[in-house]
Amino acid sequence: MTDRRGLLIILSSPSGAGKSTLAKQLMAWDPSLKFSVSATTRDPREGEVDKRDYFFVSEADFRKAVSQGEMLEHAHVFGNNYGSPKSPVEAAIGAGRDVLFDIDWQGAQQIRTSALGPYTLSIFILPPSIPELHRRLISRGQDTTETIAKRMRKSWDEISHWDGYDYVLVNDSLEETEEKLKTIIKAERMRVAQQPRLSDHVRRLQTEFEELK
Amino acid sequence: MTDRRGLLIILSSPSGAGKSTLAKQLMAWDPSLKFSVSATTRDPREGEVDKRDYFFVSEADFRKAVSQGEMLEHAHVFGNNYGSPKSPVEAAIGAGRDVLFDIDWQGAQQIRTSALGPYTLSIFILPPSIPELHRRLISRGQDTTETIAKRMRKSWDEISHWDGYDYVLVNDSLEETEEKLKTIIKAERMRVAQQPRLSDHVRRLQTEFEELK
Repeated sequence: MTDRRGLLIILSSPSGAGKSTLAKQLMAWDPSLKFSVSATTRDPREGEVDKRDYFFVSEADFRKAVSQGEMLEHAHVFGNNYGSPKSPVEAAIGAGRDVLFDIDWQGAQQIRTSALGPYTLSIFILPPSIPELHRRLISRGQDTTETIAKRMRKSWDEISHWDGYDYVLVNDSLEETEEKLKTIIKAERMRVAQQPRLSDHVRRLQTEFEELK
Repeated sequence: MTDRRGLLIILSSPSGAGKSTLAKQLMAWDPSLKFSVSATTRDPREGEVDKRDYFFVSEADFRKAVSQGEMLEHAHVFGNNYGSPKSPVEAAIGAGRDVLFDIDWQGAQQIRTSALGPYTLSIFILPPSIPELHRRLISRGQDTTETIAKRMRKSWDEISHWDGYDYVLVNDSLEETEEKLKTIIKAERMRVAQQPRLSDHVRRLQTEFEELK
């Protein structure tokens, strides 16, 4: 009997497109999902908790982790480093749990081209419109006007990589997008490669077939 | 703007595993689906209607169609020929409609390795058990004991090719299997390759982004 290896489920989108809310909804829907907490060198924002929202690390520790191959992917965004620590992901997928990543296109590309590429399922969330994206960034009230302008430029950079993903959704409605994400995850789990235990079922059918003759 | 090309959705299973019932349920669920009516040289069974259940053709006409490349796939089963006429499939997928095939592993393999391979989505339905499959074949009362024995041998041949398919389902309950099939089809339609019109959406986002600056 071969046990199932978990999937790496990557969600990417420009900020403000609803990705973090959707990730939280998926985690609530399926407690077997493991969220990949990123490491970052940026300072915590108000309300952010170390090890839950991010692993807040020093520049030196981040570089050391990268040089020792402990990051599955890493990217430099707005002067800060972000990365996905490898060991929690390997432990989870080894135990058959799917891991959810909330990362940008650079990270997605690195994971897709890594040894774990074949276990990856990547989904890009597009905003319904740019004015709507802009509105959402302003209304969440987290950023200065300057930061919002920077995020908008980064948003376009992010959006321009939409077609490197397996699936793409336009987030017109959070409820519908959540349903679509669940549909994709449920379907992917029905792929032959995701059901190694089916070999046991087929062997049992073979035995039953021999007995029938 | 590029229009969507339909998918070739292949359902295979040993006879008695519920495939035909499931195909009917899918057709009722989504009227945009086109069922690929097979051509066959065997005689019609009671209740079967020409052009609806099969295209009943002569041996000579069948061979001629194959030699003229008019069959997408064809197979010889129990002394009869079966094949999928190519032109209705091409017309449907060209118009963006998905086509549903109820064919065996030989046909599935031929389509998968054809030029239409990249547009193919294949699903194998496994029976919960061989005694159950045997029971279903007997209870539908269509066949003689001898034919049932022949079908059971063919069943094993069919089952042994389960792992060449994209998705595999064990048909424990028709309702659940129907839901799973719908989930797979809905998810596959969200793949980037299945949504060529998204390029238009992204171009619109780009224009909006330029206007914002």
